[in-house]
Amino acid sequence: MAAVHVEQLRNQAVEDLEVEIVERKGKGHPDTLIDGAAEAVSIALSNYYLKEYGAVLHHNVDKGLLVGGRSNPRFGGGEVVEPIYICVAGRATSFVTKDGKVDPVPIGRITVSAIRDFLNNTMRFLEPESNVLIDYRIKQGSTDLMSLFDKSTEFPRSNDTSVGVGYAPLTPTEQIVMQVERYLNSSKTKKELPELGEDIKVMGVRNNRKIGLTVASASISHLMPDRSHYENVFQETKSRVEDLVSRITDLNVNVSLNAGDDYSKNVFYLTVTGTSAESGDDGNTGRGNRGNGLIAPMRQYSMEAAAGKNPVNHTGKLFNVLAQRAAERIHREVSGVRDVYVRLLSRIGNPINIPELASAALVLEDGKSVSSSQGDVEGIVSDELSRITELTPKILAGSVSLYY
Amino acid sequence: MAAVHVEQLRNQAVEDLEVEIVERKGKGHPDTLIDGAAEAVSIALSNYYLKEYGAVLHHNVDKGLLVGGRSNPRFGGGEVVEPIYICVAGRATSFVTKDGKVDPVPIGRITVSAIRDFLNNTMRFLEPESNVLIDYRIKQGSTDLMSLFDKSTEFPRSNDTSVGVGYAPLTPTEQIVMQVERYLNSSKTKKELPELGEDIKVMGVRNNRKIGLTVASASISHLMPDRSHYENVFQETKSRVEDLVSRITDLNVNVSLNAGDDYSKNVFYLTVTGTSAESGDDGNTGRGNRGNGLIAPMRQYSMEAAAGKNPVNHTGKLFNVLAQRAAERIHREVSGVRDVYVRLLSRIGNPINIPELASAALVLEDGKSVSSSQGDVEGIVSDELSRITELTPKILAGSVSLYY
Amino acid sequence: MAAVHVEQLRNQAVEDLEVEIVERKGKGHPDTLIDGAAEAVSIALSNYYLKEYGAVLHHNVDKGLLVGGRSNPRFGGGEVVEPIYICVAGRATSFVTKDGKVDPVPIGRITVSAIRDFLNNTMRFLEPESNVLIDYRIKQGSTDLMSLFDKSTEFPRSNDTSVGVGYAPLTPTEQIVMQVERYLNSSKTKKELPELGEDIKVMGVRNNRKIGLTVASASISHLMPDRSHYENVFQETKSRVEDLVSRITDLNVNVSLNAGDDYSKNVFYLTVTGTSAESGDDGNTGRGNRGNGLIAPMRQYSMEAAAGKNPVNHTGKLFNVLAQRAAERIHREVSGVRDVYVRLLSRIGNPINIPELASAALVLEDGKSVSSSQGDVEGIVSDELSRITELTPKILAGSVSLYY
Amino acid sequence: MAAVHVEQLRNQAVEDLEVEIVERKGKGHPDTLIDGAAEAVSIALSNYYLKEYGAVLHHNVDKGLLVGGRSNPRFGGGEVVEPIYICVAGRATSFVTKDGKVDPVPIGRITVSAIRDFLNNTMRFLEPESNVLIDYRIKQGSTDLMSLFDKSTEFPRSNDTSVGVGYAPLTPTEQIVMQVERYLNSSKTKKELPELGEDIKVMGVRNNRKIGLTVASASISHLMPDRSHYENVFQETKSRVEDLVSRITDLNVNVSLNAGDDYSKNVFYLTVTGTSAESGDDGNTGRGNRGNGLIAPMRQYSMEAAAGKNPVNHTGKLFNVLAQRAAERIHREVSGVRDVYVRLLSRIGNPINIPELASAALVLEDGKSVSSSQGDVEGIVSDELSRITELTPKILAGSVSLYY
Repeated sequence: MAAVHVEQLRNQAVEDLEVEIVERKGKGHPDTLIDGAAEAVSIALSNYYLKEYGAVLHHNVDKGLLVGGRSNPRFGGGEVVEPIYICVAGRATSFVTKDGKVDPVPIGRITVSAIRDFLNNTMRFLEPESNVLIDYRIKQGSTDLMSLFDKSTEFPRSNDTSVGVGYAPLTPTEQIVMQVERYLNSSKTKKELPELGEDIKVMGVRNNRKIGLTVASASISHLMPDRSHYENVFQETKSRVEDLVSRITDLNVNVSLNAGDDYSKNVFYLTVTGTSAESGDDGNTGRGNRGNGLIAPMRQYSMEAAAGKNPVNHTGKLFNVLAQRAAERIHREVSGVRDVYVRLLSRIGNPINIPELASAALVLEDGKSVSSSQGDVEGIVSDELSRITELTPKILAGSVSLYY
Repeated sequence: MAAVHVEQLRNQAVEDLEVEIVERKGKGHPDTLIDGAAEAVSIALSNYYLKEYGAVLHHNVDKGLLVGGRSNPRFGGGEVVEPIYICVAGRATSFVTKDGKVDPVPIGRITVSAIRDFLNNTMRFLEPESNVLIDYRIKQGSTDLMSLFDKSTEFPRSNDTSVGVGYAPLTPTEQIVMQVERYLNSSKTKKELPELGEDIKVMGVRNNRKIGLTVASASISHLMPDRSHYENVFQETKSRVEDLVSRITDLNVNVSLNAGDDYSKNVFYLTVTGTSAESGDDGNTGRGNRGNGLIAPMRQYSMEAAAGKNPVNHTGKLFNVLAQRAAERIHREVSGVRDVYVRLLSRIGNPINIPELASAALVLEDGKSVSSSQGDVEGIVSDELSRITELTPKILAGSVSLYY
Repeated sequence: MAAVHVEQLRNQAVEDLEVEIVERKGKGHPDTLIDGAAEAVSIALSNYYLKEYGAVLHHNVDKGLLVGGRSNPRFGGGEVVEPIYICVAGRATSFVTKDGKVDPVPIGRITVSAIRDFLNNTMRFLEPESNVLIDYRIKQGSTDLMSLFDKSTEFPRSNDTSVGVGYAPLTPTEQIVMQVERYLNSSKTKKELPELGEDIKVMGVRNNRKIGLTVASASISHLMPDRSHYENVFQETKSRVEDLVSRITDLNVNVSLNAGDDYSKNVFYLTVTGTSAESGDDGNTGRGNRGNGLIAPMRQYSMEAAAGKNPVNHTGKLFNVLAQRAAERIHREVSGVRDVYVRLLSRIGNPINIPELASAALVLEDGKSVSSSQGDVEGIVSDELSRITELTPKILAGSVSLYY
Repeated sequence: MAAVHVEQLRNQAVEDLEVEIVERKGKGHPDTLIDGAAEAVSIALSNYYLKEYGAVLHHNVDKGLLVGGRSNPRFGGGEVVEPIYICVAGRATSFVTKDGKVDPVPIGRITVSAIRDFLNNTMRFLEPESNVLIDYRIKQGSTDLMSLFDKSTEFPRSNDTSVGVGYAPLTPTEQIVMQVERYLNSSKTKKELPELGEDIKVMGVRNNRKIGLTVASASISHLMPDRSHYENVFQETKSRVEDLVSRITDLNVNVSLNAGDDYSKNVFYLTVTGTSAESGDDGNTGRGNRGNGLIAPMRQYSMEAAAGKNPVNHTGKLFNVLAQRAAERIHREVSGVRDVYVRLLSRIGNPINIPELASAALVLEDGKSVSSSQGDVEGIVSDELSRITELTPKILAGSVSLYY
């Protein structure tokens, strides 16, 4: 077991900084969609391998490209003119020797079905059958031809040198950004305001005690009969956001909704399908939200894309999840912690429970020193590391935040 | 002109933290290659528009996908079995009305040539003609059909709400990581040690005063006649890195070179072309180095991909460049600054010289207060913003760091 | 009106030749599928143009590529491992000016939906959603930007210099080949013998009065629980074919069914989906059956692909249909005709009812001379040409044989 | 050895028919280009297999798609706006076991290089590097994984049931069509009239003793400074064609050159690269010239595409070549033959020298009967079949006509 490093950051808590910027790309944003497509493929492959061969075999599909289509939305209707193109790329074990016979793995069928199902589950009005061209470029891995993971060790070995970072707690600004998107994309809100699309982007900028909250929400054109309906829906939406925000914080929050609209010039955020991907916004895997669902430049974070990576030994995925869980637990269980960052660095070839570096950095309440909490923090990080293999089923069950 | 916010961070300087992690993906890394391909297309389009129409017209090609090939390297030879696939995606003005006539813009020819020339200029042994499938998915922009940018305002208007972040100075760890890659990929070193490939990744981890420096460098198989030659080249390379590092810092640096090699099992980092992209490593635009050429999770940074964005009004590009330049200038010109972060947030539709937020956060030397430097910092940021349009030609000349 | 040339061929009737070779690619054959996909796109585009703009606008989608997938059929089950790739290519009017506004035509959505619907209607067990990657490469036509066909002339003008050829009557060998495939792919037979796939290829070789009939029929693996079921189904199929054949002809017909099977080596023609396209057989548009649904090398015929061409002014399509109808009518209405070939050659730019050449060549019964029938033949060809525009709605209704 | 069937056709010689239609697609026509690309890939793969493994291994790449680009030609210049897309599809042995080691075959590199080299050798002004997107969809064959052809039999076994047809001699109309294209695309003419492109299509229609010869020839825009130069070049071209034709035949030939041009409306057949593929004309493999380089609907011919098929056991290729050679030899060596057709039908699994059917049909001079020539004809066909394996090296050397 690697020693856990614990460090006191003599920094201000992020909440106390004068300026904070936080962003969240909603579930229908092009970058979130292509993250989701890659992750859906990884989960489907994993489940297939598990079912057929009793183990998640090697794969990595953490690269993707979404090329926006073209559409023609108008009040009361409109249509997708040119489909969205979605391609998931990477490598996966394509042949497995079982009972002396070489089985081909139906990579293509699994991939295409997984992407289609993901889109069907995520978007109410995007029809994969006619609005999306699904493609994939997944090759057989070079060295792992027909091999199972070595089952002789208790812990898989890290596939790469990767960095995982997590932090806790969320500042009020972060909470607002997170919850506003969640609220607007909740199934309850979608029932009450079905006119709102899934592509909802929230940006919060705090300047001392004032927060500017910019929300851009697509709408569904065929549910918007006319301009006055549109105006009413977004007025209602704005009221609800303001109401929600006031229940989270007593900071002064100024909500701006669809700032790009210009009613006098007939500019409205109308979409046929609920996502700007229909009309030209493109996406790449790993370019959207970080592991906790936010982009927060004032924070330490990892550039690794969790989506699409193998949930067994890809530390670019596992270490981000683990660091986040450890940070949240430290914040919950150790008193006096204002901000905590957990940073994990893997070493290629090492068992995944033995990182090259495991480090927690703490911003403590005034007067607290690290010595009193060091043992607890070490214990939490060590404990989480020792149970790292429990993350795999959680990831496969979709119960862990990776990018949304 | 927006007011410039200046804030004193009561934080430790990053150099004083106990733990620091810094990474640099070298010029032949798959993520760097696909960043480079996207940027090459943007520059080529911009130059064409400038030459033909006197202005850089709207385009955005900041999404890309590189799917690794397959190869068969061996000492003294080997070959690419399956080509690398490179696709740059986005949108670009495809028709321009000039003298009452609609001109088509040769987007396809420009794109294909730009990617090919970029690869030829970047990689000595990757032959685009037989080792790469070049593709593109660049559509005509939806709303900007045949329109020039409005030339009536002095400053273009921001295309989006984007965040730019820059910081200065580099810590010793950051300098080491940056310079080691630069040295190994310099034309001088490539002459002396032609066996080294361009795909060189450097990871530095500082733990108090000890730095672990992990360098992974591809080699060129046909220039490596045998194993002993390989061993000699990397022994020599390691000595040179150690020597270089000792000239940068007196910290204790432990250099690990090609840790994945295992001579006893005949595992060597051999490539035919100099990049791991030949054998399965994939890439996406915007997933590699941040604007200053590094990935440093302990730092504030932006998730925006600078590569491929329009150099005229895409603040996801311009604000990152400008923030970096302003931060460096503040560090150079204002005394007592240990760390400075410049953060810029654009507002869609605003002139690009008027950000929604312009903020500098300073970690000062002990005993310094922000009041003495506030005016200078404001002046520098304001001055840089007022000269933001000077960045466009610099970007087109390739004289600005965007990702490498 | 062009003069109709009539010529007596002093040839044997094909029925009297010693050797005859005739082939038919069934409805699930890869070449037939990609013909069908192209034609489905043309019909869907035509119907859209008609509905929205009152006229079939310019398009030509007569090139296509089907790349076979990979599958893993086994008695009682199996699955598609790698999807089939289907791409329809060509050009189509993409923008139409209507009421002073430029409408985009949803080429992509129409194309993708048309191919999917065609596959669903044609194949019982091929699921486009998971077994097929649908793609298209249809560009806006170069010169016809936003223009309607000129409606000022009664007849459209020919798009190209093309040859159409038709003949009548079918020989007994041709009838057998045609009817055997039709029978096996009829909905009645598919109810009674659901185990038979749609990919059924029939080859008939007549040597004097003996016909060798080679039938290759895919089977549906999940409906074939085991080998004995398979043997029974094909024994039954063979009996039915022999029975059918004996009702068509009293020639000596030897039926060979699935000659590639080798039960002793466990070689069976099993498929998951009913087509060999699932496991590697590829297809190109225009490579399968000629306009009458047969490939008969002893006959005069045209190399033009009818599938995917515009039904308004593409003479490569219209002239093949018209020549076939005229030939059949001549055979029906003019006595003493043993074989008739109608040959039409268009001239680019001419109205489509005025061919460059309209020629009928007749093999007459002994003792008959062409002089007695010449007037009738000329009349029939002229009449059909004068009513050429009636073919367009027939083609759109799918009531005309083009390739199947 | 199969018996050779010989039959006397009591038909008119084609030359004596009243109407004849003959077409040739020149070497730069889109269908010819995609035939050529497929064939180049087959030859390159064959040579690689031969060199590395001593035998041509299984492959079949006889499907292809060329999607035309867009271009902007003008007198004195112009450019390709959107590249041509070329995709060759099929299957090829991708892994070979040699000395107990599994070698990957560099299918991708071979394919891409072969297509590029073919284009460079065929077109003077089409730059593959910037004007063409090269792609391939060549999969590993399903059953032949890592297997060599069985070398134990003297003759390979036929891969399929295919028809090969050849005929001789050419009629004067056929000769004219053939030779005019050859002349205009000869290197001598290209030196004297470099302004002519390679995309030259010739259509000949004979009506009794009058031939209408329609020639469509692309031109090279940057070599055509202005309209008067264009007019002069084509006047000169027309004179030369008329002169050439008069040396072949004394039939009355009316030459029409570039009938689509309309000088009064500024319509000229200008291209940047020499092929209409640059601006929207698409192509599919197997859709152009038949094995003798012509399309002649009055003739018996095969629908098989020779291009891209394996030259070892693909009878769709070999039988067409062999039938053509046998027909020519019969015409040369047997007196009294006015027309001869050789028809070969393979049987899947049979040695390729034992066709299911080998048949020669002869139109004899008046008064001749088949009995006197039967033995000679049988002997020639048998002899050619016995030497069928000699065709493979000839095909690899490119010394055999397959489609051009």
